[in-house]
Amino acid sequence: MSDQILIKEVAPRDGLQAQSKHLSLEQRQSLIESLAITGVPELEIGSFVSPKAVPQMAGTDVLAAQLPAAAVAYSVLVPNMKGYELAFSAGMRSFAIAISATEQMNQNNIRKSLEETFLMAEDILERARGDGVDIHVYLAVSFECPYEGPVAPQTVLAQAERLMRCSPARLMIADTIGAAHPQQVRNLMGELVSRYGSADLGCHFHDTRAMAIANVYAAIEAGIRQFDSSAGGLGGCPFAPGAKGNVATEDVVLLCESMGFSTGVDMPRLLESVALLSEYMGAPQGGRSHYWLTRDSA
Amino acid sequence: MSDQILIKEVAPRDGLQAQSKHLSLEQRQSLIESLAITGVPELEIGSFVSPKAVPQMAGTDVLAAQLPAAAVAYSVLVPNMKGYELAFSAGMRSFAIAISATEQMNQNNIRKSLEETFLMAEDILERARGDGVDIHVYLAVSFECPYEGPVAPQTVLAQAERLMRCSPARLMIADTIGAAHPQQVRNLMGELVSRYGSADLGCHFHDTRAMAIANVYAAIEAGIRQFDSSAGGLGGCPFAPGAKGNVATEDVVLLCESMGFSTGVDMPRLLESVALLSEYMGAPQGGRSHYWLTRDSA
Repeated sequence: MSDQILIKEVAPRDGLQAQSKHLSLEQRQSLIESLAITGVPELEIGSFVSPKAVPQMAGTDVLAAQLPAAAVAYSVLVPNMKGYELAFSAGMRSFAIAISATEQMNQNNIRKSLEETFLMAEDILERARGDGVDIHVYLAVSFECPYEGPVAPQTVLAQAERLMRCSPARLMIADTIGAAHPQQVRNLMGELVSRYGSADLGCHFHDTRAMAIANVYAAIEAGIRQFDSSAGGLGGCPFAPGAKGNVATEDVVLLCESMGFSTGVDMPRLLESVALLSEYMGAPQGGRSHYWLTRDSA
Repeated sequence: MSDQILIKEVAPRDGLQAQSKHLSLEQRQSLIESLAITGVPELEIGSFVSPKAVPQMAGTDVLAAQLPAAAVAYSVLVPNMKGYELAFSAGMRSFAIAISATEQMNQNNIRKSLEETFLMAEDILERARGDGVDIHVYLAVSFECPYEGPVAPQTVLAQAERLMRCSPARLMIADTIGAAHPQQVRNLMGELVSRYGSADLGCHFHDTRAMAIANVYAAIEAGIRQFDSSAGGLGGCPFAPGAKGNVATEDVVLLCESMGFSTGVDMPRLLESVALLSEYMGAPQGGRSHYWLTRDSA
């Protein structure tokens, strides 16, 4: 089993996309520049969604055109084939697409049925194969849905089976609302790893109930070596202190490096990115371990 | 394996003992009354230490004399045989004693050598057997020492072997400075459970590096079913937001109950205790999941 943990930094996309404070393109560019030199191997810079629906992500094409030269793989989220084409035209070649494991989440989120969403994903995956584009497929609400409640592992396993037939570059099991507990994670990810190996699997956790780090550990125990995280835990509501969003990159790095895994992330540089985020958001950002990590600079 | 997790609530002792804000005896009494009806099965009410050394714990004998009638087992910490005798005279019959796994921690903490400390523990355990007193032995800095660095598992296993010969009511493996990571916890506790079973073992975690809940999960995976925790995560510095102390009882309850274990703790009542603590400490208290747990009352 690998002694490396691969982190995809998602602060510029999942971190920013629901914030009431909208960053300027210059700020988003500076954030990307800052994160690109932390040593994190993958960086999601934004999404090609409708600027009317998600104004926080407007102008991602501009950012895509001026990506800083750095030893990092850039990617974007695309919501559908139109987004795919825009991102492709912008020169991007690594995309994330998100589909939800439940009917209601798909209906409420993108006004499509579960089946329509899977067909869309399959279309995109087929198109991507011809284009030489990498697709990370996110299976959202893989543990619990805000509308339908707990999601049965059998449901997720069947959906994973269908998706893996299309050979995505990565299948990301996402605890979109931060409701998973580590035993569920251990069981589901263990089963997925036993079926598909760990190379094409990853996890995306939110820290709503403060269990994200335990969930990352449980996933590592199950053999998972690829995780999303967001610098400073960005992704919660900036006006609700303690309302945590994505699992914080610094917490994941601290956990992984403590356990002897290598992430490649330079902590002081990462903390500089977090400080930049605090400045831009106008509110202190930081993961659960922020106080400990910054104890010498307090 | 049991589907129950036993929590010993330690806010009135480990939570308060290092706070710069000293609670009055009346406040400590009210806190004990509040915690005693949360459903938590064990409650450490204070310690019989020198009031000069630890003024926060002065008058624990007074509290011991007026314990509220409740379905909870009360206990106290005693630092040495003198404390044992004071606690015994005060009518207490369940004690914790703490010894450190490293020479320097014992020297710096209680000016005794490692060997002297173990001899003291053995004396107390022998005396307790005759008196019908339960002793929980804490092996402090079982993972890392602030003076000597990482502690080898072999050291802890040898010390545990020596202590278990004296049949303590419980051996508590303590991550006193919150430096353990879950893989260490899983390995060490797994080995201890394989040697002694889980009935007489427990863990005491601090949340300094935000890994306490992951560590609790890892210990549960290893078979541990007994944990200390502190309401509101009390035990950090109240003037350093985010500087977490003991793992918060509410976080442990949330984790355990999510995974289907029963703790007996009534969350609304526990949150009332946390609110009381916030009032007394003059600063908001609360575990990592505080925002989520109190989302409806915000």
